[in-house]
Amino acid sequence: MSQAERPGPSTENEQQFNYDRTVALSDGVFAIALTLLVLNIEVGEPGRGAGVWPLLTEQWREGLSYAVSVAVIGLLWMRHHAFFGELLRIDGRLTALNIGYLGLVAFLPFPTELLGTYEGDHTAVVVYAVVIALVAATAALMRLHAERAGLLTDAARREPLWSLALVPGVFLVSVPLALLSPVIAQLSWLVLLAARVRRSAAA
Amino acid sequence: MSQAERPGPSTENEQQFNYDRTVALSDGVFAIALTLLVLNIEVGEPGRGAGVWPLLTEQWREGLSYAVSVAVIGLLWMRHHAFFGELLRIDGRLTALNIGYLGLVAFLPFPTELLGTYEGDHTAVVVYAVVIALVAATAALMRLHAERAGLLTDAARREPLWSLALVPGVFLVSVPLALLSPVIAQLSWLVLLAARVRRSAAA
Amino acid sequence: MSQAERPGPSTENEQQFNYDRTVALSDGVFAIALTLLVLNIEVGEPGRGAGVWPLLTEQWREGLSYAVSVAVIGLLWMRHHAFFGELLRIDGRLTALNIGYLGLVAFLPFPTELLGTYEGDHTAVVVYAVVIALVAATAALMRLHAERAGLLTDAARREPLWSLALVPGVFLVSVPLALLSPVIAQLSWLVLLAARVRRSAAA
Amino acid sequence: MSQAERPGPSTENEQQFNYDRTVALSDGVFAIALTLLVLNIEVGEPGRGAGVWPLLTEQWREGLSYAVSVAVIGLLWMRHHAFFGELLRIDGRLTALNIGYLGLVAFLPFPTELLGTYEGDHTAVVVYAVVIALVAATAALMRLHAERAGLLTDAARREPLWSLALVPGVFLVSVPLALLSPVIAQLSWLVLLAARVRRSAAA
Repeated sequence: MSQAERPGPSTENEQQFNYDRTVALSDGVFAIALTLLVLNIEVGEPGRGAGVWPLLTEQWREGLSYAVSVAVIGLLWMRHHAFFGELLRIDGRLTALNIGYLGLVAFLPFPTELLGTYEGDHTAVVVYAVVIALVAATAALMRLHAERAGLLTDAARREPLWSLALVPGVFLVSVPLALLSPVIAQLSWLVLLAARVRRSAAA
Repeated sequence: MSQAERPGPSTENEQQFNYDRTVALSDGVFAIALTLLVLNIEVGEPGRGAGVWPLLTEQWREGLSYAVSVAVIGLLWMRHHAFFGELLRIDGRLTALNIGYLGLVAFLPFPTELLGTYEGDHTAVVVYAVVIALVAATAALMRLHAERAGLLTDAARREPLWSLALVPGVFLVSVPLALLSPVIAQLSWLVLLAARVRRSAAA
Repeated sequence: MSQAERPGPSTENEQQFNYDRTVALSDGVFAIALTLLVLNIEVGEPGRGAGVWPLLTEQWREGLSYAVSVAVIGLLWMRHHAFFGELLRIDGRLTALNIGYLGLVAFLPFPTELLGTYEGDHTAVVVYAVVIALVAATAALMRLHAERAGLLTDAARREPLWSLALVPGVFLVSVPLALLSPVIAQLSWLVLLAARVRRSAAA
Repeated sequence: MSQAERPGPSTENEQQFNYDRTVALSDGVFAIALTLLVLNIEVGEPGRGAGVWPLLTEQWREGLSYAVSVAVIGLLWMRHHAFFGELLRIDGRLTALNIGYLGLVAFLPFPTELLGTYEGDHTAVVVYAVVIALVAATAALMRLHAERAGLLTDAARREPLWSLALVPGVFLVSVPLALLSPVIAQLSWLVLLAARVRRSAAA
């Protein structure tokens, strides 16, 4: 009985092991990326400001980009989670694509810090949106490969392919908005993400 | 046999997978938040102070806020753990609430560093207590949703709802105390948390 | 069948869940404490030194304290692992003690950085040894509680209690040595730890 | 039934537990090492540069070393994963070697930062290649020990031993190339790693 749970020479168990460790690595990267975001919010030296209150009023933009990034990483995790739930098994190419995907997720604290530090800079918002779009594009590649290689369950295949373009679409459409006002762009992301999470939750 | 452990097309397995990854993400965030706290304790440059001993006497407040935060995160983890043990299954809305909850837990190193850096500042203690109260409020929302959506076991439903207000209560009551003396407020938290952990342990 | 793996209302499953999440939190803290050590090794600004080579010759002491701390955390993990392998079940008090233990393990990067930054300072070595001794003392408390509360397997109870004092003994004995030469003290730790790991590996 | 999944006094369950926690610690270290890489990419102060765009053009080398390190850690994880899939069980010596291996993987962010910070320095590239070669040498030691101690499955033993020398070979051969041009050396690593991942994926 416990034999079934120990990875052994059989191909079937190898695949199972594969799946569990890939998910464990992925959850680890999501958890750490989410937790590292807080390091971007600097606590200045006590001598520099007049106290905690002025510090907080200066740093509300960093707080906003923190909230946006928690929502983004949370939503990406929910999507990743849903996608892996649709897989029958994992092959090597999907594992490699997943590592590239995780490398992009782990990169997110950098554009998040750009957003918080370079407050009114349009380029920072564009960089952020482009990184998110790359994440979504890699996810779409994983989905396409899984479909072609027959790794998906029957239920999964019924979902329309255009749903893959939804999250990158939201961010690419927001680029012109970001050129007008970075703060409005981020607030609109927060609203759109909350709506999306609500829809995922309802489904 | 190993079929039962691999996530597949059936709804029942989907839920099981859901539960495991949600718990894995949560444990990861708790573990990292707990471990990042130490980064708040700065080791100054060798040239600045006269040696390690003066450094340590200067930094006992950072040590105190480290101990308080380990106790807080440990207690939150024990509560999260107990709550998830009462769940029959997880739905999408609970997952979304849980991500918001984790975003607040991951945020804790920031007010912890405020406490350690701005030593005698009342605002730092108020900010800390407010963040903890938000964490507890989100936990209460998760509990309420789980009850309404029928996600709880029968044993869990017997617990009175006012027990949800206990931890936020401790912190909100301490705010006036913090305005008198930040150090006494933190020491009182440590005592109350130790008592609470002792009670949880005895139950 | 999959019912047996899902945490449910029965007491037996509750305990199993308890055990798995406690181990997951512990492994997370060990993994992060081990990985955060590298942040203590500073890469100076390019302008400050003459290049990478002078930097490396300056920082061999940081490399030494990195190696010592990987060995220390590795050995602590192996001991924690062996101890949890001897448990029949976990109660609330053991969970609370374990969180205190993890708080001390997560604290280790601080004395490690002290060792690397304040190179010839005796106090830094004493602080390091005292923290390790506290870790070992908490582990001994966990062992004693597990024995009294009947949480151990029969095989575990046969082990003599003085074996608990071994690791703290090594570090407390080294304190006088550290007062003579911090580098020799660290080298002796490395030798003793390697011997200990070899013995654990052989057993 | 749930008895089979709880670690208990029997030797068989002990080994299973051993295996799971060793894999969990390893996945944690890989995930964190991968995620810490982003901390090497500094976001300068807003006042220092003229904005985000000049910052990005200055930091493309840091982006390159980030991409190389994600590919390196990803490939190491895939190899570690494949190796652990070939194991029937784990003994103490393999656990100790694995901790040494993880200590080297966790060390990787340091040479990665060297590469990014000391842009044209040949020593930085040599240090990076030497650390990778040490990682691969430790992996080869684990493989050799597993073979001698009879820990491998029959399928695993058929693999030729020279395949262990492949990854260290790629990096040691690149050292002369690095002395000519660090950027070309890193680009060649990226190409070789992508090819290797592709081959692993196809197998």
